[in-house]
Amino acid sequence: MKTDHLLATIRRTLRRRRLDALLVCQPDNRRYLSGYTAGDTSINESSGVLLILAHGEPLLFTDSRFDLQAEAEATGFKVSLYPRGLLPLLDTLLPKLKIRRLAFESHYLLHATYQKLAVVAKRNHVELVPCTDVVEKLRVRKNEDELARIERSVLLNEKVFLEIYHGLRPGMSERQVALSIENCMVQKGASGPSFESMVASGPNGALPHAVPSARLLREGEPIVIDMGLILDGYCSDMTRTVVLGTPDEKTVTLLRLVRKAQLAGTQALRAGVTGREVDRAARTVIAAAGFGQQFGHGLGHGVGLAVHEAPSLNKRYRRKLSAGMVVTVEPGIYLSGWGGIRLENMAVVTEHGHRLLNRDTTFLDI
Amino acid sequence: MKTDHLLATIRRTLRRRRLDALLVCQPDNRRYLSGYTAGDTSINESSGVLLILAHGEPLLFTDSRFDLQAEAEATGFKVSLYPRGLLPLLDTLLPKLKIRRLAFESHYLLHATYQKLAVVAKRNHVELVPCTDVVEKLRVRKNEDELARIERSVLLNEKVFLEIYHGLRPGMSERQVALSIENCMVQKGASGPSFESMVASGPNGALPHAVPSARLLREGEPIVIDMGLILDGYCSDMTRTVVLGTPDEKTVTLLRLVRKAQLAGTQALRAGVTGREVDRAARTVIAAAGFGQQFGHGLGHGVGLAVHEAPSLNKRYRRKLSAGMVVTVEPGIYLSGWGGIRLENMAVVTEHGHRLLNRDTTFLDI
Repeated sequence: MKTDHLLATIRRTLRRRRLDALLVCQPDNRRYLSGYTAGDTSINESSGVLLILAHGEPLLFTDSRFDLQAEAEATGFKVSLYPRGLLPLLDTLLPKLKIRRLAFESHYLLHATYQKLAVVAKRNHVELVPCTDVVEKLRVRKNEDELARIERSVLLNEKVFLEIYHGLRPGMSERQVALSIENCMVQKGASGPSFESMVASGPNGALPHAVPSARLLREGEPIVIDMGLILDGYCSDMTRTVVLGTPDEKTVTLLRLVRKAQLAGTQALRAGVTGREVDRAARTVIAAAGFGQQFGHGLGHGVGLAVHEAPSLNKRYRRKLSAGMVVTVEPGIYLSGWGGIRLENMAVVTEHGHRLLNRDTTFLDI
Repeated sequence: MKTDHLLATIRRTLRRRRLDALLVCQPDNRRYLSGYTAGDTSINESSGVLLILAHGEPLLFTDSRFDLQAEAEATGFKVSLYPRGLLPLLDTLLPKLKIRRLAFESHYLLHATYQKLAVVAKRNHVELVPCTDVVEKLRVRKNEDELARIERSVLLNEKVFLEIYHGLRPGMSERQVALSIENCMVQKGASGPSFESMVASGPNGALPHAVPSARLLREGEPIVIDMGLILDGYCSDMTRTVVLGTPDEKTVTLLRLVRKAQLAGTQALRAGVTGREVDRAARTVIAAAGFGQQFGHGLGHGVGLAVHEAPSLNKRYRRKLSAGMVVTVEPGIYLSGWGGIRLENMAVVTEHGHRLLNRDTTFLDI
């Protein structure tokens, strides 16, 4: 992916805010701006940082384990190593680069690390400026290349779902199915799941975030399967609620209701409407049928390099959507002791509406 | 696990430091003190926090998803929900509990979250005191119950290793083997791997932290397999270097050398010696054979609820080991273009020596 225009935008932002540089530690942001794909094992085990200068060539610092990969992938960046870690490097680099005001990602720096960075900054007369959304703001609207990758991720996820779905039998455990999903993903070429797959059968489906258990699937009950994968860096996320054998009347009624809400939410998508309005379009359908209290979560969220990112579709999100945003639409109804129904598709927001990314219709229109 | 004595120790520490309470956000620490086993999806998606008061009943706060689990597991704690999140709750709770000095885990709080917490603290005239090791200090020495769990984790990991090892064939890809390892772990009852399994064959073994690739296993070359699982909350970590078919002379020589270093390191373990001394005992063996530069990492690390925790066995660790610590002993030699040899066992430090936790000897004494 070409990132020159992104870097130009960041540089403009830095100059406008009188910042000399931005330190990028968040792994998705790092990848987005540089093309360097290494992830972090944890927030304590970084595989590198970017230093985007208001004026000058962008820099990537890493350690010897990632040297070759960074050189190969981050083609627009000058790659250097920090043999003794980031802080000693900044100690010599900040004065050399004449950095006076340094922005950092406050939402991806531990307080303990910040304290150490502050010592280095003070010694070099550098002011630290916490930021939270400089790169995220850019990530929210996807370009054509990103949309193509997300679509491939969605379609591969559906392929995995269909293979698993056709192999479902009563007597399999939720955990066994979840494991097969994740195996199948990797076998078909995904880097891995984009979140822990959820398989919640019968009453377990009443928890929106159920963890796969030893419970065995039975005929006739709703089984909520929420799954997503990462392909070429980009995430997918989809939920289907399926039944082995014949669904009873209650299940059919609720499935149709949730689907109606999903269609209403999807139809409400377009550039210029707020996340709140889209949420309301779907929520009204469920509330009108008397299940408002049983739909306890937001309607959807953005998806990209992260499986949960901006924007949100919920009651509190008053900002407007733009063309190129990718969101999930996932209404649900959860009945304690009975189970749950959730249906989730992904769509791209366009100027005048949306483009649905999912093609699978299993149990959507029964 | 009974945690009363742990809480009593924390309370004493708080009183000594004139702290009114400690906010525990780090998931392993939370589990260690309370018995509440839920993990965090990420540092941004907490499943709860503890508030340990210098005087008074310990508190656990979570949201409705985890209510029942917290009540069932954290038996010594008063469980409450924070329907609007932690910060609004603290806003009412800090004055009510007469908290004036509040300690928090600086190494598990994001700078952005700290800033919000600081606003709440200021409004309530509360001083925030960053801490990094209050709970970790206790976790480093394991009790009998923890040692039993760690041993079960080690033995299950060996069982998985042996099953995978006996199924290894030339032509399998590293990735395929890594995937089978993780499947087998879950099938045998583990919660999952304790880190991403490493399978590095031939030249790929020259990277100490190689990621499993599409490379196919071949006869005669060393294959480094580094794997660990989580059982009942506790981690295991083991490395074997194996060869399909007959190893050549170079491989045998290096395997014997690394094994000799491992035995020297293990023999050096006992309460009272420093991590640095144990590291040196193993390193000397490898350096004497002329491979000092090819053993670029520390000899070992502590293992418990986390797969990497205190203490360390390396050149910079000058603190003394104590009885009840659990460490890995994992020397290695890495030759660019050729491959790597690493052997890793886990042992408990005792007053007069050590107790080895591993029983498997595959390719250890050839």
